[in-house]
Amino acid sequence: MQKTLRDIAEFLGGRIIGKEDVIIENIRPLDKAGSSDITFIASRKHQKRLAETKAAAVIVNAPLPASGKNLLIVADPYAAFGKLMALYYPPNHGYEGISKDAVIEEGAVVSSGATVFPGVYIGRGAKIARGVVLYPGVFIGRDSVVGEDSLLYANVSVYHECIIGKRVILHSGVVVGSDGFGFAAPGAGNIKIPQTGFVQIDDDVEIGANTTIDRATISQEKTWIGRNVKIDNLVQIAHNIVIGENSIITAQVGIAGSTRLGKSVIIGGQAAIAGHINIGDYVMIAAGSGIHRDINSGQVVAGSPQLPHRQWLKVEACRNKLPEMRTTLAELKRKVELLQEQLNKKPK
Amino acid sequence: MQKTLRDIAEFLGGRIIGKEDVIIENIRPLDKAGSSDITFIASRKHQKRLAETKAAAVIVNAPLPASGKNLLIVADPYAAFGKLMALYYPPNHGYEGISKDAVIEEGAVVSSGATVFPGVYIGRGAKIARGVVLYPGVFIGRDSVVGEDSLLYANVSVYHECIIGKRVILHSGVVVGSDGFGFAAPGAGNIKIPQTGFVQIDDDVEIGANTTIDRATISQEKTWIGRNVKIDNLVQIAHNIVIGENSIITAQVGIAGSTRLGKSVIIGGQAAIAGHINIGDYVMIAAGSGIHRDINSGQVVAGSPQLPHRQWLKVEACRNKLPEMRTTLAELKRKVELLQEQLNKKPK
Amino acid sequence: MQKTLRDIAEFLGGRIIGKEDVIIENIRPLDKAGSSDITFIASRKHQKRLAETKAAAVIVNAPLPASGKNLLIVADPYAAFGKLMALYYPPNHGYEGISKDAVIEEGAVVSSGATVFPGVYIGRGAKIARGVVLYPGVFIGRDSVVGEDSLLYANVSVYHECIIGKRVILHSGVVVGSDGFGFAAPGAGNIKIPQTGFVQIDDDVEIGANTTIDRATISQEKTWIGRNVKIDNLVQIAHNIVIGENSIITAQVGIAGSTRLGKSVIIGGQAAIAGHINIGDYVMIAAGSGIHRDINSGQVVAGSPQLPHRQWLKVEACRNKLPEMRTTLAELKRKVELLQEQLNKKPK
Repeated sequence: MQKTLRDIAEFLGGRIIGKEDVIIENIRPLDKAGSSDITFIASRKHQKRLAETKAAAVIVNAPLPASGKNLLIVADPYAAFGKLMALYYPPNHGYEGISKDAVIEEGAVVSSGATVFPGVYIGRGAKIARGVVLYPGVFIGRDSVVGEDSLLYANVSVYHECIIGKRVILHSGVVVGSDGFGFAAPGAGNIKIPQTGFVQIDDDVEIGANTTIDRATISQEKTWIGRNVKIDNLVQIAHNIVIGENSIITAQVGIAGSTRLGKSVIIGGQAAIAGHINIGDYVMIAAGSGIHRDINSGQVVAGSPQLPHRQWLKVEACRNKLPEMRTTLAELKRKVELLQEQLNKKPK
Repeated sequence: MQKTLRDIAEFLGGRIIGKEDVIIENIRPLDKAGSSDITFIASRKHQKRLAETKAAAVIVNAPLPASGKNLLIVADPYAAFGKLMALYYPPNHGYEGISKDAVIEEGAVVSSGATVFPGVYIGRGAKIARGVVLYPGVFIGRDSVVGEDSLLYANVSVYHECIIGKRVILHSGVVVGSDGFGFAAPGAGNIKIPQTGFVQIDDDVEIGANTTIDRATISQEKTWIGRNVKIDNLVQIAHNIVIGENSIITAQVGIAGSTRLGKSVIIGGQAAIAGHINIGDYVMIAAGSGIHRDINSGQVVAGSPQLPHRQWLKVEACRNKLPEMRTTLAELKRKVELLQEQLNKKPK
Repeated sequence: MQKTLRDIAEFLGGRIIGKEDVIIENIRPLDKAGSSDITFIASRKHQKRLAETKAAAVIVNAPLPASGKNLLIVADPYAAFGKLMALYYPPNHGYEGISKDAVIEEGAVVSSGATVFPGVYIGRGAKIARGVVLYPGVFIGRDSVVGEDSLLYANVSVYHECIIGKRVILHSGVVVGSDGFGFAAPGAGNIKIPQTGFVQIDDDVEIGANTTIDRATISQEKTWIGRNVKIDNLVQIAHNIVIGENSIITAQVGIAGSTRLGKSVIIGGQAAIAGHINIGDYVMIAAGSGIHRDINSGQVVAGSPQLPHRQWLKVEACRNKLPEMRTTLAELKRKVELLQEQLNKKPK
């Protein structure tokens, strides 16, 4: 693709310092960009590397001193980079139309504007909107709905009666709507509580490979992934969970049943969150944390069981001093005993 | 569905206090139930909420003072709720018969009473009993057996020569019988030990989405999931593990090779259990624990490395006091030095 | 299969003490082997069990005193066991040829020497070499390449433009080439950074069931799994990671983006490794560790945050003494106060 820096500035809404008609053919990292590439500097610590690059232009967030570099100034260079990548690399699924080797049951409604690969199964009463792409091995259960322009990669399984919004991306192996883990008399009878609720995934959500999202327990109730939530690979979302919009959940996190997350919550990898708790808005949870209690909005927590992040740092700093502390304690104990003896011997 | 409270009492084996002929159309939570719904109170702490509900009847475990509520008294209200849900919401797979778009290899035996969706593959010599439901994308390897009334959701993979019992539920993405992780000269040659054993899953087991169960290493040996075991999503069960009946394993737990669990073991989410150890009956392992040693029957453990649960609680309580302890220790050290000086200056 | 001990010695390159023409029909564990079986002793601690076995021959690494047992002496008995298992149990996929029920898009090149089960999908421009086996439900995206003799089990998904080497084994549910987890303005706009790189898996790699490997972010860059790396089930490999040859990664490990591992790194189960760090060659990381900083070659680390293994052992030993330390500290504090009082009362 060939565009001028002017075209790009218009597309991104930025301001140019330098030549406006330089041709941009590709987007590449700072150290690999050549004379027909654009690159970007996302963080302050990389600003000093501006002089190194051979890029035709650099996306930055301020008019850096640039000794003749062509600069494109935007509010968020990394976001600009993302938008530009989407422009230069439009999706190419390598397939069009609705395959005769897909199975579409009676009563399913598939838009003529959808792409359905061979080997897809669409159950009775399901609805597939225009612009949707279903890769081979996708299973859509009866009465489930997939909204416009959503993209389901190979071997995604969506159980019955689930609702998937618009522009949702589900990566390979994602499971939506499996039974929640509910048994009466656990360890004894293990009597199954049938799981008759559903899953609702709002618009612009992306869910990583092999992540699992269980349906709610009771009919008419839902496990609910809010608008623009991004979930990484191999994450477990149990029944009846609600995740507020714009939240970010990193790989291998597990969240237990009925827990509610506010909006813009960010959770680091492999964190575990207990069931039936409330997490406020804008909460940040460090990787590997074990969360057992409610968290108020805006808090940053770490550790297992959780601590405020600053306190956790102090505790961890001490943890490594434990052997030294133990030695000091034993020495002190001896010294105090000696002092006591010495004092007792003194004349009154 | 419409039943009288009397019908329900007969089905569950309970005793009614109040009107027997009230009509029950649905089962709903305490706060949402209306005049044609039944609800339940599973725990003592919710008993005070009995007055709030508008339900036509309430399942309880004792004759609570109820000011005119219709009560159904049973031993375990939550189990009763599960059984009633199964009655009111019978499975509806939206498909019947054996699809011509499934592939059944020569020598496979599929009961005419099984349900086989399009896109299923059944290998040579496999046996599928009556009442089994195989969703699209299910793979049954050669010579594997699936027992009566088992239910395999979309995209389940069962490798060759595995045995799946009756009334087993495997959720989407479950893998049964993949190779155990065995290599000689690890980190050097990484010479593969072929995995030629199998997996046996006994009756009434349920396994959550994307959980993986490896086959045993040596021919004629097995990885064995006992009767009525319930395993949640994204759990790893390595080769040659034995899990005793009625055990409950929560999401993202990992168990390493050749470990044996007794019956009715309950394991919290993300716990990790080392290989080649023995865990007794009725053991409880807290979420996030790291288990490195054998555990005797009936114990409750937590932490990593594991501690008895009570001891773990004490240790954790101290952990948060570490910075304070460190400060106290430094102060004490100074005080003792001052005391020593003071004492030395004194006349003998 | 029937072979003489002499045949086996020639195959493995070992030395016999005892009868050379004894017939070996199978390979079985020490305690289960009978008069037509061979068994092995891999570790010194099992050497004393030599007398117990009824095996026709025993593979050992030194001429143990054996009271008439037939011994086969090799450098690494466990590796020899692996090679012998591969000889006695050759793969049996129960299928041959290229199924007419597979979908091979125009422009894909599939060797006539490949095995393609029904229900496989091979995208435009993909190349499948001879000896490759693709099980049902395998998805090969456009322009991806699978090298000679590689084996992809049921329901593996390989996205577009990925490169898989020779003799690679991908177990069921593996996902190769899903989008890396990259968003600008995380928690706010969550603007997707399109992931346009690829995944390269070198020769002799094996990857466990439901493991996920994301593609690199930027075009022409790669997530790279080195030669002979072995990865267990449910592992998360994020975008742009490089893993050096012969490394071993156990189940449920998670590695964040752009981290580089040297060769022969061994990582225990459920360990988590942060993004953008460097891990040297021959590093060992204990199960459950949380790695946040670079690790030099040859180090052994444990804990979260990481410590050298020996230091970690000391810290953990103290951790369990914390309640006792806290009590001692409180007692000392009181004693020192009493001493101080006692001293102050004394005449000067």
